[in-house]
Amino acid sequence: MNNFEFHNPTKIIFGKDSIQKLTTEIPSGAKVLLLYGGGSIKKNGVYDQVKNALADFELIEFGGIPANPEYAILMDALELIKKENITFLLAVGGGSVIDGTKFLSSAALFTGKEPWDILTQHIRTYKGMPFGTVLTLPATGSEMNSSAVVTRAETKEKLGMGGPGLFPQFSILDPQVVHSIPPRQIANGLADSFTHVLEQYMTYPVGALLQDRIAEGIMQSIVEIAPIILKDPSNYNAAANFMWNCTMALNGLIQKGVPSDWAIHVMGHELTALYGIDHARTLAILTGSHYSHNFEAKKDKLAQYATRVWNVQEGSLDEKAKKGIEKTVAFFHSLGIKTKLSEYTPDYKGTAEEVKRRLVSRGQTAIGERGIVKPEDVLKIVEAAY
Amino acid sequence: MNNFEFHNPTKIIFGKDSIQKLTTEIPSGAKVLLLYGGGSIKKNGVYDQVKNALADFELIEFGGIPANPEYAILMDALELIKKENITFLLAVGGGSVIDGTKFLSSAALFTGKEPWDILTQHIRTYKGMPFGTVLTLPATGSEMNSSAVVTRAETKEKLGMGGPGLFPQFSILDPQVVHSIPPRQIANGLADSFTHVLEQYMTYPVGALLQDRIAEGIMQSIVEIAPIILKDPSNYNAAANFMWNCTMALNGLIQKGVPSDWAIHVMGHELTALYGIDHARTLAILTGSHYSHNFEAKKDKLAQYATRVWNVQEGSLDEKAKKGIEKTVAFFHSLGIKTKLSEYTPDYKGTAEEVKRRLVSRGQTAIGERGIVKPEDVLKIVEAAY
Repeated sequence: MNNFEFHNPTKIIFGKDSIQKLTTEIPSGAKVLLLYGGGSIKKNGVYDQVKNALADFELIEFGGIPANPEYAILMDALELIKKENITFLLAVGGGSVIDGTKFLSSAALFTGKEPWDILTQHIRTYKGMPFGTVLTLPATGSEMNSSAVVTRAETKEKLGMGGPGLFPQFSILDPQVVHSIPPRQIANGLADSFTHVLEQYMTYPVGALLQDRIAEGIMQSIVEIAPIILKDPSNYNAAANFMWNCTMALNGLIQKGVPSDWAIHVMGHELTALYGIDHARTLAILTGSHYSHNFEAKKDKLAQYATRVWNVQEGSLDEKAKKGIEKTVAFFHSLGIKTKLSEYTPDYKGTAEEVKRRLVSRGQTAIGERGIVKPEDVLKIVEAAY
Repeated sequence: MNNFEFHNPTKIIFGKDSIQKLTTEIPSGAKVLLLYGGGSIKKNGVYDQVKNALADFELIEFGGIPANPEYAILMDALELIKKENITFLLAVGGGSVIDGTKFLSSAALFTGKEPWDILTQHIRTYKGMPFGTVLTLPATGSEMNSSAVVTRAETKEKLGMGGPGLFPQFSILDPQVVHSIPPRQIANGLADSFTHVLEQYMTYPVGALLQDRIAEGIMQSIVEIAPIILKDPSNYNAAANFMWNCTMALNGLIQKGVPSDWAIHVMGHELTALYGIDHARTLAILTGSHYSHNFEAKKDKLAQYATRVWNVQEGSLDEKAKKGIEKTVAFFHSLGIKTKLSEYTPDYKGTAEEVKRRLVSRGQTAIGERGIVKPEDVLKIVEAAY
């Protein structure tokens, strides 16, 4: 097991009718900016619940944060924060709204010239404006971690940021919100959280028994509830498991003491930046070809995964490992998610070269665990995903 | 899944040679009271490492905190804290030293008359004197939770306390400390942490898929490393798994969203208070008879446990469940731990009545999940453990 530090101070408030607890979680006297996305919270009742809980607070609103939170729009929110002397941010939404809020938490106290520098110059945030979240879309785990991804249309860039100052003070998770999520988004959440676990698990063994067991447990749970929640998003217990597993998939716990990969995310972000493909679907596109290309490096864990998550008991280690890849791709298909780039865009030719070019231009020339994915590997992995 | 809140702000610093990180974790300018137990830290090098790391701090020491931290001794430490105007407590030891330090953290800021009231009147601690820990004995999980148990010889009492103000600010876990722990203590740590998981798992199903998987994962990991670490406590990777599993067994995570039992602990504490039997061994004495007595209430989880943790695939649900109890008792035996009260004391007769009397006198007349263990059940469970 590798050395590690673990510190996750986010308070989770989980369960039925938990949104009303907002009242006591936001510091009294705070001037609150309520941030949200395209307005679905006004249809599903969450907006009204939040407004009721915050009746005694001074409240300003900023809606319209899009999927893949856009820098230009966030800069408008930042102006509002400064103009209105906001002291507390409340994200009500999914990963995009929460990530956008994290950017604002950091940018509000940033003393440099251009907040985009936080992303391009990898500036870690040790203190941000305090914020909380009400999660409406289980997927990214952003509600219990300290990192964010922001997109800039102007430059077709999608970059990450983070730091210990960016944990939400609290996150409210009411599984009842799941019933109004469109099937496509539920499928995305299942694929996204599943891949988050894979990125922290599918590397090489380091003897971290419990981290492996928890990662496998999350994947087993997601596999178990996926067909149930896709069929009936109003099934409360399935929704609760969906929500808690998505959070646990990326709150830092399973990453401690083990190597992690994240090459799928690095390459996948480029597919979203280039073609606007849903984040989760870019991961589904690349996972199979990434694991096939790096088979030798990953086969021990692939075989363990096949056995423990998919109950593959027969065959040699190599056979089990291959079965593990097949099962993963089949799982994405079972969610109604296509796994070839050409199924998403007719303009796929040349994508591999462009992804490679972009990563090289940012110095990302050795990604994945032990830096095994070099520019020539990126080329082959993306090509194999056409 | 039940509603829950989860908030665990303790920072874990885990790994080889991590004790030196103390230097930057304690607030600069703090006046530190270093608390420890019987002096084993002076033999195994931990004391020197701690002193080196704290060379620049004003430091007072208080040693001699015994197993089952004794109120009278802790009151001496409390006097020292007040006399010396201590501002930070550092526990270097196992669960007893850490629990004693938690009591002191609370008592140092307690404004009532008699600190023992914190325990007898169930006063929750919302703010204590800040403290950190250096763990030298994996077992209780106290290094990452906010509760403690304190013993008072004068009244033969062993009582619990806790509250959100009693999380350690940080805990340093260097698995290298395990190599000098006597086999008896390692066996105790394995049994203690295993039973912690059972108390939060062996109740009835509520559809909390991941919580069950994590609980099972901890038990599988403990079962896997137990023979290795007992044979060779200098095996670093086994020690690391031992240490992290003990912490994860009782840091609150697996208890969230599920019912919990804790009747074994409530009854077990009385056996320690009466006969001085090691805490972990009191749990091993009572587990089998408790599960047999409450078989109908627990058999669904017992069968799931038998299948997933012990790979029992054959038989009816009842047969699997019974096998689960047998496997548990056999596991304690494999650690060299006896599971009958009469193997620990010749004076066992009348114990059941005395335990019952003590619990009734404190109003503990319906313990366990759903309050299923009534005084007459306590009588039968303890008697069956003779």
